[in-house]
Amino acid sequence: MSKDIPLQKYGFVKRDTPRKINLDPLQTGGILTPEANQALMEWGDGYSVCDYCAGILDEIKTPPIFDFIHKALPEFLGCDQARVTNGAREAKFAIMHSICKEGDWVVMDGNAHYSSLVAAERSRLNVKLVEKTPSPEYRIDPEGYGKAIEEIKESTGNVPSMALVTYPDGSYGNLPDVKAISRIVHSYGVPLLVNGAYAIGRMPFNAKDLGADFIAGSGHKSMASCGPIGVLGVSNEYAPKVLERSKFNKNKEIESLGCTARGATIMTMIASFPSVYERTKPENWQKEIENARWFSSELENMGMRQLGDRPHNHDLMFFETPVFYEISKKADRYFLYRELKSRSIHGIKPGLTKFFKLSTFGVGRENLGMVVDAFKEIIQKYEA
Amino acid sequence: MSKDIPLQKYGFVKRDTPRKINLDPLQTGGILTPEANQALMEWGDGYSVCDYCAGILDEIKTPPIFDFIHKALPEFLGCDQARVTNGAREAKFAIMHSICKEGDWVVMDGNAHYSSLVAAERSRLNVKLVEKTPSPEYRIDPEGYGKAIEEIKESTGNVPSMALVTYPDGSYGNLPDVKAISRIVHSYGVPLLVNGAYAIGRMPFNAKDLGADFIAGSGHKSMASCGPIGVLGVSNEYAPKVLERSKFNKNKEIESLGCTARGATIMTMIASFPSVYERTKPENWQKEIENARWFSSELENMGMRQLGDRPHNHDLMFFETPVFYEISKKADRYFLYRELKSRSIHGIKPGLTKFFKLSTFGVGRENLGMVVDAFKEIIQKYEA
Repeated sequence: MSKDIPLQKYGFVKRDTPRKINLDPLQTGGILTPEANQALMEWGDGYSVCDYCAGILDEIKTPPIFDFIHKALPEFLGCDQARVTNGAREAKFAIMHSICKEGDWVVMDGNAHYSSLVAAERSRLNVKLVEKTPSPEYRIDPEGYGKAIEEIKESTGNVPSMALVTYPDGSYGNLPDVKAISRIVHSYGVPLLVNGAYAIGRMPFNAKDLGADFIAGSGHKSMASCGPIGVLGVSNEYAPKVLERSKFNKNKEIESLGCTARGATIMTMIASFPSVYERTKPENWQKEIENARWFSSELENMGMRQLGDRPHNHDLMFFETPVFYEISKKADRYFLYRELKSRSIHGIKPGLTKFFKLSTFGVGRENLGMVVDAFKEIIQKYEA
Repeated sequence: MSKDIPLQKYGFVKRDTPRKINLDPLQTGGILTPEANQALMEWGDGYSVCDYCAGILDEIKTPPIFDFIHKALPEFLGCDQARVTNGAREAKFAIMHSICKEGDWVVMDGNAHYSSLVAAERSRLNVKLVEKTPSPEYRIDPEGYGKAIEEIKESTGNVPSMALVTYPDGSYGNLPDVKAISRIVHSYGVPLLVNGAYAIGRMPFNAKDLGADFIAGSGHKSMASCGPIGVLGVSNEYAPKVLERSKFNKNKEIESLGCTARGATIMTMIASFPSVYERTKPENWQKEIENARWFSSELENMGMRQLGDRPHNHDLMFFETPVFYEISKKADRYFLYRELKSRSIHGIKPGLTKFFKLSTFGVGRENLGMVVDAFKEIIQKYEA
């Protein structure tokens, strides 16, 4: 038996980061709604939703998991079949692992999230990246997919078994032309996986409209859910492979290992769903874009520079900030983090001053104004 | 964009199962401690623990995730290296997928949980089961592992690449002789994975004492954690393979896809850890065994029969209940469920009357006495 474990540092731990204004791209879309907070307390116990489970998570009628997964989610995502997973990366892995064979090739955009690369690596696939254009745009040219597929075909004799595009990417918040990419990869018979971890739950999204065969989304990143939880969408064409059931137990899907997001994670996703549905309506998303553009222009007026798509079409933005870098040479590299923390503004990585990314999602014009004012004050203070 | 989704059934949903007394084996070890409930509200937001993350979840110093995963957990589990996963099944899959090659064989006990079989299937392995003894014992004879390995060796020319044993199993709560199994499989050079989903967090457990090379445990099943979360333990010998890092990103482990239990799941596990540590002490576990044995003898006095290990050494027990089956012929198969529900007792699957499994873990002698009295009342009522 174990002994001598100092226990006093465990137990309940307070969260000491300022949470008044949070600009961390990982966090803005995952902040729980009041309904989700209520659901947490109700469904927090380990297997709480399994009270009436007859062996298949997504067929639980009470609470309404069946209706959510089989009716609301496919409609919301614009796909034939949907499932909940333990996250977007787990959805991507499940899709690659079931569709591709060891040694196959997959083509991805050069802005792909590291977890897409690791999902391919875990599936033992070869990865070819479609180059992004140079700074400051970092765009993905749809024609690059055709070129990559041709190159793979030439060197291996076969087309890749999948293409993936990140919509938008997690560095610049760029929205590539997925429809064009879909047309190109489909012309080679290659199916397309859209990683929508920063789209689904934030903005209008429809798998069929985009031409996606598979989609992955993130509950804790963009659907106001307690993590880890994600969503997987698949067309009827590919569903038999991705959702194949076990030969050992006919109730259990192989790629989900039989059961995924149970308890608090699925119930917070359901709790937040009406709000998430509302916030992704085109008119509400338009306000978020306007806020992002306004914020970007204010920062540019202070001598910073927003990279990526211009005008920008997403809340996630990357800024070059020479004005702060110059100050850091006189002060130290943590001055910006300290100054923002003292103003209860969080989300720019400690130590970054030359460039940083942030998200304006759900922060609101008033709070964004406070951030703009804070930046002005900080610049004045150190330039004085 | 989606339309016409009836939203009124989503949002906050109340949990209407009686929770005064819960005997569901899935639930008894996963009920949150008061500290975990507090942690839920504090850390419920999607990526809440990532505020100070520099790229590696298990190296986050604030909150104390690094100390928990690298110090407390290995000591508690008796293993060299530990990680948190999205559940015990995800730990088993990660271990099999990294250690075994497609087409390899794995030997498992005939009481293995379905998720062990599905994890092997997802890893594209062949499975050979060690038969259990017939009813009423359902024991696993350690010699069966030697026999199974010999048979595989004979037919394929190679020994299996892994053996797995379930300690205890989820049907009968039997505790096989893992040390003897370990000696046998190690004599063939086969490494051993112990599935401790119903042990770790409930009872004394030490991987090295058991002779385990790998272990899997469940946070939502047995460590009073908000799921999905599990623990993975591995010896230094096998850690380089199981915990191998990505060639694309040196901070990210391949089998975890870079990051696993973040937010509320890890923080509730940490919050409950002092209590979980306490309840697994031999003297406290001994009280649980005494309660289970007392409860079993009370049911046997009413004409039911406990299968599996006798005397029993775990809170999870399987009963044959002809007395209830006879009543169901006169009443209907849901009478027992209804009668128990009206007494606020939950956890025996609706419709079961001929046999059922339950768990007495943490229920306490007073509440167990109420269950015994309820059974007596129900029998009297229907036999009158």
